[in-house]
Amino acid sequence: MRAPQVGTPASMRELNQRIVLDRLRRGGAATRPSLARDTGLSKPTVGQALLDLEQDGLVRPAGRTSAGPGRSAVLYEADPAAGHVLGIDIGRGRLRLAVADLAGTVVAKVDEPNRCRSASALVRTVQDMATGVVGQAGMALSDVVLTVVGSPGVPDRSGRMLHLAPNLPGWGRRGLLDELEAVLGPNLLVENDANLAAVGERDQGAARGVDVFVCVNVGTGIGMGIVVDGQLFRGAHGAAGEVGYLPYGWVDTDSEGWTPATPGMLEQAAAANSVVKLAKEQGVRNAGTAREVFQLARQGDPGALAVVEQEATRLAFLVASVSAVIDPELVLLVGGIGSNTDLLIEPLEKAMHEISPLSPRIAPGELGEDAVLTGAIATGLRAAQDIVFERRGENLVTQRSGVNV
Amino acid sequence: MRAPQVGTPASMRELNQRIVLDRLRRGGAATRPSLARDTGLSKPTVGQALLDLEQDGLVRPAGRTSAGPGRSAVLYEADPAAGHVLGIDIGRGRLRLAVADLAGTVVAKVDEPNRCRSASALVRTVQDMATGVVGQAGMALSDVVLTVVGSPGVPDRSGRMLHLAPNLPGWGRRGLLDELEAVLGPNLLVENDANLAAVGERDQGAARGVDVFVCVNVGTGIGMGIVVDGQLFRGAHGAAGEVGYLPYGWVDTDSEGWTPATPGMLEQAAAANSVVKLAKEQGVRNAGTAREVFQLARQGDPGALAVVEQEATRLAFLVASVSAVIDPELVLLVGGIGSNTDLLIEPLEKAMHEISPLSPRIAPGELGEDAVLTGAIATGLRAAQDIVFERRGENLVTQRSGVNV
Repeated sequence: MRAPQVGTPASMRELNQRIVLDRLRRGGAATRPSLARDTGLSKPTVGQALLDLEQDGLVRPAGRTSAGPGRSAVLYEADPAAGHVLGIDIGRGRLRLAVADLAGTVVAKVDEPNRCRSASALVRTVQDMATGVVGQAGMALSDVVLTVVGSPGVPDRSGRMLHLAPNLPGWGRRGLLDELEAVLGPNLLVENDANLAAVGERDQGAARGVDVFVCVNVGTGIGMGIVVDGQLFRGAHGAAGEVGYLPYGWVDTDSEGWTPATPGMLEQAAAANSVVKLAKEQGVRNAGTAREVFQLARQGDPGALAVVEQEATRLAFLVASVSAVIDPELVLLVGGIGSNTDLLIEPLEKAMHEISPLSPRIAPGELGEDAVLTGAIATGLRAAQDIVFERRGENLVTQRSGVNV
Repeated sequence: MRAPQVGTPASMRELNQRIVLDRLRRGGAATRPSLARDTGLSKPTVGQALLDLEQDGLVRPAGRTSAGPGRSAVLYEADPAAGHVLGIDIGRGRLRLAVADLAGTVVAKVDEPNRCRSASALVRTVQDMATGVVGQAGMALSDVVLTVVGSPGVPDRSGRMLHLAPNLPGWGRRGLLDELEAVLGPNLLVENDANLAAVGERDQGAARGVDVFVCVNVGTGIGMGIVVDGQLFRGAHGAAGEVGYLPYGWVDTDSEGWTPATPGMLEQAAAANSVVKLAKEQGVRNAGTAREVFQLARQGDPGALAVVEQEATRLAFLVASVSAVIDPELVLLVGGIGSNTDLLIEPLEKAMHEISPLSPRIAPGELGEDAVLTGAIATGLRAAQDIVFERRGENLVTQRSGVNV
């Protein structure tokens, strides 16, 4: 057991650099005196930290102040080009990639349909698209500080594979994470896509500033991301939020003795296929896809409206279950089905009122199809800012030897 | 936005005291040189901190070292008598109270049946028992640093009341938290009892060292505490773990069109009353209480065994639901019904295997009826150690004026 260490001069100098850099990243460009005021550090200490950070390529001058009574002063800002992250959203329907600088500005983006029929083809396609988008940004893959991949499934870092990803053929095979690393480089983080969508909505979307919230994605499958105090909650094995596996549909007639329970799972009852199946049973015409069912409901088709109401009731089961376990403040609905909040929220809240004393706020996501990519970049940025700071000496050497070649 | 402040001499002196005190509390008695080695502080700094802490009554000498080649040195320890906490477990069946010193040693304890028929009677009884047990420890209520009460229900600190506590008559009334504070003093923390039981099992019981775990209490009602990285997870409104409200028993016959869902709640299906009801339906004789049903099952009664199996299946629904939401590593079963793990775990795991791809470890609690009280004291100690340190100047004045009177 070691108690916190008292600061040594070297670690103090590093700490001061970190304090100044964090202030610049969060609060924007500032002068030396205003940095001293904001951080509580002395002006000479701030000056030394700025000098160090500028030498390491993490901070740059950004003009001069003009307003105010005194002399104008140099403004400094965190250099957004000190590093870049690559975000990749591997969806069953589409592949989306974006490169962002350290300020989070997207500098290149690609978005294509996913036509791959095998895991090998998908890995190759991801590699090609990654090389392409990084090239658009004027870089090579090796220049990327960190790549964050959002994928269906639960990453198993010891098994180097993804569990519970049945919707992408071959995607659950052993060693897949190594295959991705081989083409994308070693600084790779693979995260469940519903988790990243939640991070995206927390960072840029409908859940900004909310302490305990969930983002429920209902589409081809059902997934959920949980964010607590700004951090993803993954559970013990990364399977937190796998609410497609909620037991659903138990028949338990204990008034006549009882029959053995015959449970199903929520994903079978409430994902896209089930909406189409319900529509067929209702005799709804021209409802070959879930999207068409919702369109018909919007046009007032009574059968389609009944299906939507039944779907909302099943989603109320989900929301009631999640509320009884983790009591979120906000439930965001996203995904091909979930995003039909104009039709779903009212019957969902009505059903919730009937089956649960708990009543979280239910709302649509704000980021639409960009949620996973936004979350991937946000996740990458947090880590990249640390990595870039840790590596600052190393970076310098690389840059200098680059000039020499 | 303020970055961390650089240390001033006064705050450094306080920080060093804190470092030395934390080391003594966690690592036990130690000499000045070994404290310097463990903390990275210089020996003179450790000496000053020890002097300050001894003057404030937080540290005391505890003999001398005898082993080793050099001169013997003074051993110091955190003074366990520098403060006391009071833990109170308000159960429907029993009232349990204990006083512990800062080392967690219980110095006085009482345990009586709860015969109160109203909230007012219960508040008075708690006051009398609290005064009594504190008196046993040679103190007055005002000497207690912090009192932690475990109670059914969800504390609403702004409404000063407990929600969702139907099993204690009148206990949900507005202002109840003020009534408790009026008799127990202002340093009072009221916490859900299932939450405290989870904290107790994490601190002293079956969940030591487990990062993500839940403690499911099945008895008269159903409750659950969630502990993540050693901290209680309460949700947005304190209702996390209220799994008695899981929607259960939906009948959803979508093969024949579909009928409106007729949901119930898990507490109605799986708490003690339901076990007795199932036994009656099975024609089990002499099974007036859930305890008797489990006793009969242990003796091999086929009807009682069938009831136990059905109960295990319903609890599997609970465990599968909780696993799909938060993916715990460990599920502890406690409470009047839950603690019958010898009979429940095997059929529960079998049912889990049928209805869920997730399989957390399921195990009995280790603390039995002491879990809530143990959690109350553990919770109190964490806070009390901070309070006692913050107040150390103040304490000294009180002690001195006490001598003067």
